[in-house]
Amino acid sequence: MKQIPLITLTTDFGTADGYVGTMKGVILSIASNARLVDITHHIAPQDVRQAAYVLYTAYSFFPPHTVHLVVVDPGVGSARRPIALRTAGGVFVGPDNGVFSYVMVNENEPVEAIVELTDPCYRLPQVSHTFHGRDVFAPAAAHLAAGVPITDLGPPVRDPVTFPPPRLEITDDSISGEVLHTDHFGNVVTSIGRLAWSGDALSLKETGGKRRARFTASESAIVVAGQKIAGVHHTYAEVELGEVLALVGSEGYLEIAVREGSAARKLGLCPGNAVTLRI
Amino acid sequence: MKQIPLITLTTDFGTADGYVGTMKGVILSIASNARLVDITHHIAPQDVRQAAYVLYTAYSFFPPHTVHLVVVDPGVGSARRPIALRTAGGVFVGPDNGVFSYVMVNENEPVEAIVELTDPCYRLPQVSHTFHGRDVFAPAAAHLAAGVPITDLGPPVRDPVTFPPPRLEITDDSISGEVLHTDHFGNVVTSIGRLAWSGDALSLKETGGKRRARFTASESAIVVAGQKIAGVHHTYAEVELGEVLALVGSEGYLEIAVREGSAARKLGLCPGNAVTLRI
Amino acid sequence: MKQIPLITLTTDFGTADGYVGTMKGVILSIASNARLVDITHHIAPQDVRQAAYVLYTAYSFFPPHTVHLVVVDPGVGSARRPIALRTAGGVFVGPDNGVFSYVMVNENEPVEAIVELTDPCYRLPQVSHTFHGRDVFAPAAAHLAAGVPITDLGPPVRDPVTFPPPRLEITDDSISGEVLHTDHFGNVVTSIGRLAWSGDALSLKETGGKRRARFTASESAIVVAGQKIAGVHHTYAEVELGEVLALVGSEGYLEIAVREGSAARKLGLCPGNAVTLRI
Repeated sequence: MKQIPLITLTTDFGTADGYVGTMKGVILSIASNARLVDITHHIAPQDVRQAAYVLYTAYSFFPPHTVHLVVVDPGVGSARRPIALRTAGGVFVGPDNGVFSYVMVNENEPVEAIVELTDPCYRLPQVSHTFHGRDVFAPAAAHLAAGVPITDLGPPVRDPVTFPPPRLEITDDSISGEVLHTDHFGNVVTSIGRLAWSGDALSLKETGGKRRARFTASESAIVVAGQKIAGVHHTYAEVELGEVLALVGSEGYLEIAVREGSAARKLGLCPGNAVTLRI
Repeated sequence: MKQIPLITLTTDFGTADGYVGTMKGVILSIASNARLVDITHHIAPQDVRQAAYVLYTAYSFFPPHTVHLVVVDPGVGSARRPIALRTAGGVFVGPDNGVFSYVMVNENEPVEAIVELTDPCYRLPQVSHTFHGRDVFAPAAAHLAAGVPITDLGPPVRDPVTFPPPRLEITDDSISGEVLHTDHFGNVVTSIGRLAWSGDALSLKETGGKRRARFTASESAIVVAGQKIAGVHHTYAEVELGEVLALVGSEGYLEIAVREGSAARKLGLCPGNAVTLRI
Repeated sequence: MKQIPLITLTTDFGTADGYVGTMKGVILSIASNARLVDITHHIAPQDVRQAAYVLYTAYSFFPPHTVHLVVVDPGVGSARRPIALRTAGGVFVGPDNGVFSYVMVNENEPVEAIVELTDPCYRLPQVSHTFHGRDVFAPAAAHLAAGVPITDLGPPVRDPVTFPPPRLEITDDSISGEVLHTDHFGNVVTSIGRLAWSGDALSLKETGGKRRARFTASESAIVVAGQKIAGVHHTYAEVELGEVLALVGSEGYLEIAVREGSAARKLGLCPGNAVTLRI
């Protein structure tokens, strides 16, 4: 059976202008049966790292033939390359500015191909200097979703831009990381992960597998922004309304939360803040 | 002809994170031809009553085979049950926290089945403690939309959680109710309804049919937050720009509005405020 | 091959209530295979000119059989007519309040038909006084997308409401216009266009073709709100971070921007402000 073309969209365009609609019009003019799913259009303007994180949390839940179109592109009109890449987990289209960093480091789904989007057949006839989402990325995503082989779109890229992985250091008595993201509820996601429960014990394997940690959740403590939080919980309901707690989030990373409240606001936390888990 | 699977989504997730996209990826991985329609993702965090109201205003305009997925779930990870229910008007999936209260009291479309979502075949293989939208509710909605009988998903629920209906009291010379909702325009929807026009007369039948009222719209008066509004109008254009008026809203409930302005802001009204209609 | 019915939606409803979902339910109850694309629901309440502009920037990128549904309708319930119109570029449904002004002046795609939506067969059985988006416009859009001829929906309209085109005056040494729109990024779009590059020269043809201008981009200067900006650039990357620049936007109009910042905020610009380009 032929698969239904499926494209997700992640941008910093907001939803008040016609930009997202315009890209969808371009896609549906090329691949009229494509299914479109918005991940978000509320990435902070030009915040490539936030886009990389949000994409990372969502893409692996889509079928592997899905094309993930990401347009957070502060370098539009400069020499930065437009690229497409394919792994066993998905196809990705966007600027070569590090936005696919977390996709590319997934050990279980190595990169199969990366190309620069140079072939004019897979762009709009006129390419503007300011809206490559419309003129370059949307057409490429539509053609890829419709079945054009990725290698038809342009020459291989051997040195894609990536940024360093978030901080994660394991010692005998602590795991150190940083705040990665604060979400709509004010939950604070850290780079300490991926954690796995086994009874009251938690274990963590550093990426690359070099070092492991294993510790008793109820005896651990989190230190962040000069404040100390006792233990790691399973779920919000284990504490009172309004109380701060640490728990393992839905992605397996250590999160700091307030039950039915905002930890980001209560503790004043932002991406980049240091977090230490004493084990 | 086989119906196209149709699923609506109502959550308090906001649209800045990857959570909604993740749920859609889970759904489309199970039911690749499902059609997805967002009702809203901007329910105030954990506001189950607001979600119940917004769902109620929208669901009856969808085809009856539609699955309405609602994830406003302050009790995630606690003992609250995940449920699915079916009426003649639709299929509903979400937490058993009262969010389907208004669906369940519809006399014209009685509940045909309610089940607890316990069968692991209709969940993701790993169920987290914090994101049942992804791990429990989205898979259930997708399987139901794809045609799995509701009774396959788990055992019957005989005592679903509901909250009491909004205040509505009819006497010989007044109808008393409360503010239900303030919308994006600042229109204030009250529980006084459903009202039906007949010339300049308005009639109201209390739920359950025990008591009726009938009165002349132009001779009535609304008292709310210590302020008095004369008469009930047919439409905004009957008053000047910026003027306060009462009218029968699109759902048949008494609304308080300001022509091209915000009544919620001008009168300082919030859900729960008492409203009296003198007839 | 039969075309997939395609409908876009542009409203001032916001996304926190059930109104947009309700309209989509109405559409899918009539045309179950219709594809729905949101342009925006964040038009400022009752701002017909903003809706006209946003629609204008997006519609031409959709296939010409697309039905564009626009509900920004301060006159709902008054005598303003509900209309549908068709050009070679698309089909349009909404209130007759000028929201289709920019569509109707497109010389390359003249209006082929305009009708008033009077036939009760193509409305919901009950039409409210306050929500014609649900009761009149959504059903009309669904029937048109499903293939009903536009002339079946009602009698011709010979005098549709339009507002005057934005200011654009060309003299020997200047082009005068106004601010049309400020977008999510704070980019300021002006009415000076459409501009076309040819090396370092820019040319502009006034609508109607009566007057033309041609000038050297680097020798020109923009005066707006008492401030002067030197030259017109190709792209953001030609200036430093935080610096103000003028460039030709993705629609061909003169834009004022700040690289990775907000020109609207930095220069304090709003729609209607005068802009002069000295050539």
